[in-house]
Amino acid sequence: MKNSPNPFQEWLRFHQARVERALEHALPPAGTHPTHLHEAMRYAVLGAGKRIRPALVYAAGAALDTPAALLDAPACAVELIHAYSLVHDDLPAMDNDDLRRGKPTCHRAYGEATALLVGDALQSLAFHVLVHDPAGQTGPALPAAARLRMVETLAAASGSRGMAGGQAIDLAAEGRKLNLAELEDMHIHKTGALIRASVLLGAYSSPATDDGIIERLDRYAKCIGLAFQIRDDILDVEGETGTLGKTQGADAARAKPTYPALLGPGPAKLRARELFEETMDALATLDERADPLRWIAAYTVERNH
Amino acid sequence: MKNSPNPFQEWLRFHQARVERALEHALPPAGTHPTHLHEAMRYAVLGAGKRIRPALVYAAGAALDTPAALLDAPACAVELIHAYSLVHDDLPAMDNDDLRRGKPTCHRAYGEATALLVGDALQSLAFHVLVHDPAGQTGPALPAAARLRMVETLAAASGSRGMAGGQAIDLAAEGRKLNLAELEDMHIHKTGALIRASVLLGAYSSPATDDGIIERLDRYAKCIGLAFQIRDDILDVEGETGTLGKTQGADAARAKPTYPALLGPGPAKLRARELFEETMDALATLDERADPLRWIAAYTVERNH
Repeated sequence: MKNSPNPFQEWLRFHQARVERALEHALPPAGTHPTHLHEAMRYAVLGAGKRIRPALVYAAGAALDTPAALLDAPACAVELIHAYSLVHDDLPAMDNDDLRRGKPTCHRAYGEATALLVGDALQSLAFHVLVHDPAGQTGPALPAAARLRMVETLAAASGSRGMAGGQAIDLAAEGRKLNLAELEDMHIHKTGALIRASVLLGAYSSPATDDGIIERLDRYAKCIGLAFQIRDDILDVEGETGTLGKTQGADAARAKPTYPALLGPGPAKLRARELFEETMDALATLDERADPLRWIAAYTVERNH
Repeated sequence: MKNSPNPFQEWLRFHQARVERALEHALPPAGTHPTHLHEAMRYAVLGAGKRIRPALVYAAGAALDTPAALLDAPACAVELIHAYSLVHDDLPAMDNDDLRRGKPTCHRAYGEATALLVGDALQSLAFHVLVHDPAGQTGPALPAAARLRMVETLAAASGSRGMAGGQAIDLAAEGRKLNLAELEDMHIHKTGALIRASVLLGAYSSPATDDGIIERLDRYAKCIGLAFQIRDDILDVEGETGTLGKTQGADAARAKPTYPALLGPGPAKLRARELFEETMDALATLDERADPLRWIAAYTVERNH
């Protein structure tokens, strides 16, 4: 990561721009009926965000030699699910946040009822994107079996045994003291499930993939999901509001359980580093086409926002 | 409908019980982690509701000779989408209702944050059910192409150009005077899209179906969707709270536009009757296996709740 130009930053920028175009295309045009909802959906999705989940789709697909054109749909789908979850999490009934990605949250900008519908409609759109071939599309398309597997994986990762379940676990945990196992259970659901699904959707794009490779990529995904959350907790304690694009120290202010609070900041960083080593181990049999997966793992534990 | 025993009531009760078992099976067991969310999901879905949308799936499938076992998944999926929409519509940011299907609304019983997650997770579950084969399942399954078409149709019907879009149109209409075209546009999205999807999902279960039949069933579905809403409006004016299971006159109290308000009660009933005649016309080339579709159309314009 010390070389100049940084290959990861170039790879990431390229794929951020790629998924941005795909999202722009997948979202309903702003001027179409009902316009207020469509404007709000575009506001909630476009123009900001690290796009780590789409990056994982592209990186896992690239590791198995899938052309990027076949990965645009699953890359959009995971980001649409992520964006919907942010809109709903920010609502007054949940975290009641005013600021997201450096802008007013969706309900602050468009009203609470519209923000509710934005989240609902973005979830529907995620599944639509996975199975829909736009009119006039040419070239190869994902096989039906791959798409069905993607729908099933994304639905499971989003639902009550995945991300939405993680939110419920988080709600029940607020103000309580969690032990490490409970904290990890929360994060495995809340953020881990969708990160894992992102890697798996990328992997499923390649029909020839054997179960051994899928298992190793899944192990990579589990480790990176947890490492990502530990880093998030560390940043919430150490970061500055301007860099984060959200209110710093928000979790501590609400007495939410965090890794640094439970383990201490030093051991929390060590745990993230161990998880990084495990991702490298999981990818050991893969060649340099898996480098984007390696770069993302390194970024996950080193990032500052 | 004057015979005794009434064949529609028997058919409906049979299929209500059938989809209830399928929903019971599709929903996560109440004791499983996270329990509060899973209990609330079951509360929002099971034990009440007319199950008109599942009935349309079974009826459209039966008209094309599809075995009922292949229709359980799409029947569950449309009801899960409907149930999620009710939970979110009832939230304080939307209609702020206290009573639904004769019970406290989901957010009254489980809290607002949980109700938000219940709706989110039910939507994910709807798509999961469509593509997931439970472990140990034997016998025929829906072909992959049929499932993909169902996911696409259901996602489009649920999203910003379907049901969620209808909610947004409804929000924008509150307190304003709508003309008939605007009112119909709202209902085509808000309730019509999912009713239409229910008929289409039933039809797509049969791979041999030609486009002419799909078009006629779609015409049936559009008419029944609008007739259903006109009847709903009439009941809101004329019905009693006890029979409806929700607060009577609620729409008028909020100055929401309705058919009886726009057309007068007599012409509103006449319009429902005309739509019924058109459903019969759309089904004219189908034999007695389409009788359940005919019964549902008659019920739609005659029901008292």
